[in-house]
Amino acid sequence: METLTELKQQAQRQKDHVVSVANAADEEVLLAVKKAIEQSLCSFLLVGSKIEIEKLARTVELDLTKEQITIIHVDSNPSRAAVKAVHDRKADILMKGNVSTKDLLKAVLDKECGLRTGGVLSHVALFEIPNQERLVFLTDAAMNLTPTLQEKEQIINNAVQIARGVNISNPNVAVLAAVEVVNPAMQATIDAALLTQMQKRNQIKGCTVDGPLAFDNAVSRKSANHKDIYSDVAGNADILLVPTIEVGNALYKSFMYFAEARVAAVISGAKAPIVLTSRTDSSDSKLNSLSLALVSSKTF
Amino acid sequence: METLTELKQQAQRQKDHVVSVANAADEEVLLAVKKAIEQSLCSFLLVGSKIEIEKLARTVELDLTKEQITIIHVDSNPSRAAVKAVHDRKADILMKGNVSTKDLLKAVLDKECGLRTGGVLSHVALFEIPNQERLVFLTDAAMNLTPTLQEKEQIINNAVQIARGVNISNPNVAVLAAVEVVNPAMQATIDAALLTQMQKRNQIKGCTVDGPLAFDNAVSRKSANHKDIYSDVAGNADILLVPTIEVGNALYKSFMYFAEARVAAVISGAKAPIVLTSRTDSSDSKLNSLSLALVSSKTF
Repeated sequence: METLTELKQQAQRQKDHVVSVANAADEEVLLAVKKAIEQSLCSFLLVGSKIEIEKLARTVELDLTKEQITIIHVDSNPSRAAVKAVHDRKADILMKGNVSTKDLLKAVLDKECGLRTGGVLSHVALFEIPNQERLVFLTDAAMNLTPTLQEKEQIINNAVQIARGVNISNPNVAVLAAVEVVNPAMQATIDAALLTQMQKRNQIKGCTVDGPLAFDNAVSRKSANHKDIYSDVAGNADILLVPTIEVGNALYKSFMYFAEARVAAVISGAKAPIVLTSRTDSSDSKLNSLSLALVSSKTF
Repeated sequence: METLTELKQQAQRQKDHVVSVANAADEEVLLAVKKAIEQSLCSFLLVGSKIEIEKLARTVELDLTKEQITIIHVDSNPSRAAVKAVHDRKADILMKGNVSTKDLLKAVLDKECGLRTGGVLSHVALFEIPNQERLVFLTDAAMNLTPTLQEKEQIINNAVQIARGVNISNPNVAVLAAVEVVNPAMQATIDAALLTQMQKRNQIKGCTVDGPLAFDNAVSRKSANHKDIYSDVAGNADILLVPTIEVGNALYKSFMYFAEARVAAVISGAKAPIVLTSRTDSSDSKLNSLSLALVSSKTF
């Protein structure tokens, strides 16, 4: 897959997927629902106050009688109800509506009717960069601050699961650091070398891991060759694993603001993909993220 | 200044600047020297083995009899001799030739005839990004691994000095983190808030500091406004200060490989600017870096 447009087309070819929206009473959210239905992406459970949803649906001219829409009225705690619908297999994907991320994740992590798997949740973003031939994943740019080695292992697994959704069966994972050599003074290089060997020993499966790699060695074969680095991953990375949230966040934003990227992002690590779009996301980003959740839901 | 081409033009308008090259016996280095002279940038002290320099000069068709060239023959330790020439005011700028960075910096830090000032040395890179209106500095992407608060203060001072060279009299310094709020679990946000207040108390001078800022708040006014952040720096940063080398290195490479940037870079913090171009740098980058060193040498 080379573009996010292809991602959306793949999502459109899937049938009968249902997205559970935690508090759909929000103009921006209902606009995204409207566009998703127009583009035949999926069906929706709109969880929240029925009266409020109906009122805002009129504002954005969304026809609530469409067969793709079911309203689940709740007086309170729409997060819990939306999560429970996924837990009960009435929906395949969870989407944040007009609730706080904190509230939503609290419901996701509920022991009784939540979606926890025991592992960490992590943010997985997929970028289309204008001057790059392949799409590239970046993780974790938003959830885990300074992951430990074991958390990094889970973050890799979470991203590999999403990559399988876009039909990358054995993704190349580049573990980023500032240099390509193990330096005991740089924890990122230590963890990178360990993760590489852990994959070789089958402690990490379903992907090929290599690190430490600097950003350029990960994405440019020429740059890797210059440093005499020859591996399946170097210059050919599908997934960039960053050492800290500061690296991930800065890269994410530099891709968007300086490299004019398009992005799709989901939360992985629960029993279903979670879409956490925010108010500032473009309409394009929102539908891309929904598409990424839809195509990867089969791997959950 | 909006482009690195203007930077080079500013360097060309300066007269009588001399660059001391630590071991000029290298084809790539002599090619850069040749181009710099063709473009009327500066004069050179070529330190190293006279016989070897003469041999390689023939290979790259560099005329060593030009008035801009002086050869200083040494049998050994060209780093020390090149640094001493700057120490003795026979040259304004130090440039790495065919020596290791380690050897060069050892000579720079020599107590007797080195160039130390007592502060940290730091890497300062200036980028021209195709879709951005203004040039932006990034520091430190190469020298300091995990700088302390006091080291960050010095890294700011070092970058401000270079910014003055390109006629930014009071640069806006954005202290980057993954979020815009102080979070005790994220050291980058703590240091950012402290540096901001230190500048307000005149502990840091000659610039305006604001942080923590995420990358987008630093470079996009629209993004900053979305988060209700209003400051001289937000959306208007001249200098991006990163918390760790991992952030700096990844951003540097993402600018170059994904955003198709042009770059100029120097080492600041010694008694003169130091140019550390590497074999893999393009000819454009080398001359840009030399230009940045030339225009900023007046501030040392």
